[in-house]
Amino acid sequence: MNNNDNTVRHTVTVVKVGGAVVEDEAQLDVLLHNFSAIAGRKVLVHGGGRRATQVASRLGIESMMVGGRRITDRNMLEVVTMVYGGLVNKNLVARLQACGVNALGLTGADIDVIRSHRRPPKLMTVPAADADDSESRTEERMVDFGFVGDVDRADGNALHALIEQGITPVMAPLTHDGQGNILNTNADTIAAETAKALAQHYDVTLIYSFEKPGVLVNPDDDSSVIDCITHESFVKLRDDGTISGGMLPKIENALNAIDAGVARVIITKATAIDGKHGTIITK
Amino acid sequence: MNNNDNTVRHTVTVVKVGGAVVEDEAQLDVLLHNFSAIAGRKVLVHGGGRRATQVASRLGIESMMVGGRRITDRNMLEVVTMVYGGLVNKNLVARLQACGVNALGLTGADIDVIRSHRRPPKLMTVPAADADDSESRTEERMVDFGFVGDVDRADGNALHALIEQGITPVMAPLTHDGQGNILNTNADTIAAETAKALAQHYDVTLIYSFEKPGVLVNPDDDSSVIDCITHESFVKLRDDGTISGGMLPKIENALNAIDAGVARVIITKATAIDGKHGTIITK
Repeated sequence: MNNNDNTVRHTVTVVKVGGAVVEDEAQLDVLLHNFSAIAGRKVLVHGGGRRATQVASRLGIESMMVGGRRITDRNMLEVVTMVYGGLVNKNLVARLQACGVNALGLTGADIDVIRSHRRPPKLMTVPAADADDSESRTEERMVDFGFVGDVDRADGNALHALIEQGITPVMAPLTHDGQGNILNTNADTIAAETAKALAQHYDVTLIYSFEKPGVLVNPDDDSSVIDCITHESFVKLRDDGTISGGMLPKIENALNAIDAGVARVIITKATAIDGKHGTIITK
Repeated sequence: MNNNDNTVRHTVTVVKVGGAVVEDEAQLDVLLHNFSAIAGRKVLVHGGGRRATQVASRLGIESMMVGGRRITDRNMLEVVTMVYGGLVNKNLVARLQACGVNALGLTGADIDVIRSHRRPPKLMTVPAADADDSESRTEERMVDFGFVGDVDRADGNALHALIEQGITPVMAPLTHDGQGNILNTNADTIAAETAKALAQHYDVTLIYSFEKPGVLVNPDDDSSVIDCITHESFVKLRDDGTISGGMLPKIENALNAIDAGVARVIITKATAIDGKHGTIITK
C-alpha cells in the first residue's frame, strides 16, 4: 500500500443493459459500438429476461413473476443458466472481441466473484389468488422465489486484478452459493454490487441504461430530463410527487451505491451511455 | 527471459471429460472429487453433446451427425452455446468452487483464448442418401458442418497468466472467429490445442478420459491395458492390427500433441484421472 496515496485513481465505468437491448439486433449494434467507445476501464452487466421467457416457453416451462421478479424453480434455473450464462453472455463476449474489447464472460461462480445465499420465502403483498384480472384485490402471502440469490459479497480485488490486465468483465445475472448451486440474481443488483466492490479501487461511474433518456419531470416528455439528483433534492422531488412509482426504488438504490463509495450513478437511454447524457445521481 | 532457464518448470494437468461423465450425477461426483484432488496447476475441458441433443430435441430441433460430428446450423449453434457455455460450464464451475477449486469458465471467445475459422464444406464419404438403414452403401458428398470452428490458435500466454493467479480454467467446446461469431469445436481438439499452447510454459500432462481403462489389446478385456505407447511402438501395434478403428485417430492426435511439446498424453477411465492409471503415450 506504500505508494497508493500518490498514484492516480483510475476511473471505471460499469454499464448495465437490460434484456430488451441485448435481444434486439439494431439496439445491440448501437450498444456494442457505444460501449466499445467508452475510454478506459469498463464492465458490462447484462440481463436477458425476455429471451429466458421465450426459451422457457419453447421448452414448455411457464414463467411466473411476482412483483416483477421471476420465480426460479429447478427447470427455470436451467433455462436462465443456459440463456444468461451461455447464449446472451457468450454472444456479447464474441461481439465485443470483434470490436477490439478484450471481454471475459463471468457469472458470480467464476473465480467466486459474487457469492449469494438463496432468498428465504418472504411475506409479500400479491394479487389475490381468487381475484380475476380486472380486480386489483391483493392479499398477503408467503412467496418462495426458488433458486434466487441475494448477494452476500462481490470480490472487488478479483475484478480489479482482471481489469488491470486489460480485461473487460461481461457479467451475467447469475451468482452462486459456494455450495455448488447457481442462483438467479437481478441484473440491477449485480451492477450495483459490482460498482460498490470496485469503489475501493477506482473512481466508479455506474450507468443504468433503460428505455427513457433519464429521470423525467413529465413521463410523457422526453425533453424533461432532470439533470442531477442528490440526497437532498431527492427528498424534495419525492415529497412533491415529481418522482414516484417504480422510479423511487431505482433512485434509492442509486443513492445507496453513492453512500457505499460509487462516485456517480447515471440513468440514461441505452443508446446514450457516454456519460454525458441522462440523469446524474451524486452526493 | 533472464532467469527462466534456472527456474523450475511447473507441471500442469489438462483433463478432458466427455459429455457422458458430466451429465451423469454419480460419475460427475467422482470426477469432481478426483479432479479437485489433482495437485498443482490444472485445466478441465468438457463436452456436453448428449445434453445438447436432449435440449435440441425438446426445442424441436433435430440433431444431424456426420462421421460422429454435429452439423451446427444457426438453431443448433444457439443450443450448443446455451448448453456448453451456460448449463454445463457454469454448473461445473459452481461445483468446483464448492470443492475449493478456483474455477473460471471459458469459451474460446473469452479473453480471445481460442480463435478458429468456420470449416469450409468438405468432400466426405457418407452413407448413401438413398440407402436404407440396413445397407452400408456410401457415397462421396460435400458436407457443410455449418457453424463449426477449426482452431487457428490457442493463447498459451493468456492461459498461463490466469493459471499463475491460482485460477483453474474450465473450458467449453466453443471457439470464436474474431468477427463476432461463436463456433462449435470438438472438445478433444480444445483439449489438445490447450495442452499444446501451455507446453511453451509448462511440463504438460494431457489426460483424455473415456469409458475404458485405457487402450486395450483385447477390447473385451479391461485388464489388457497397454501401459505405454511411443511413436515406434504405435507403428507396430497399428501394423499388426492390435490398434484399429476409432482408436487410431485418437492415438495419432496424442502423438501429434507429443510432437508439439506436450510431455505425455494419458488415455484412461474418467474415474481414474490421477495420472497413475491408463495408457501413457510419450516420446
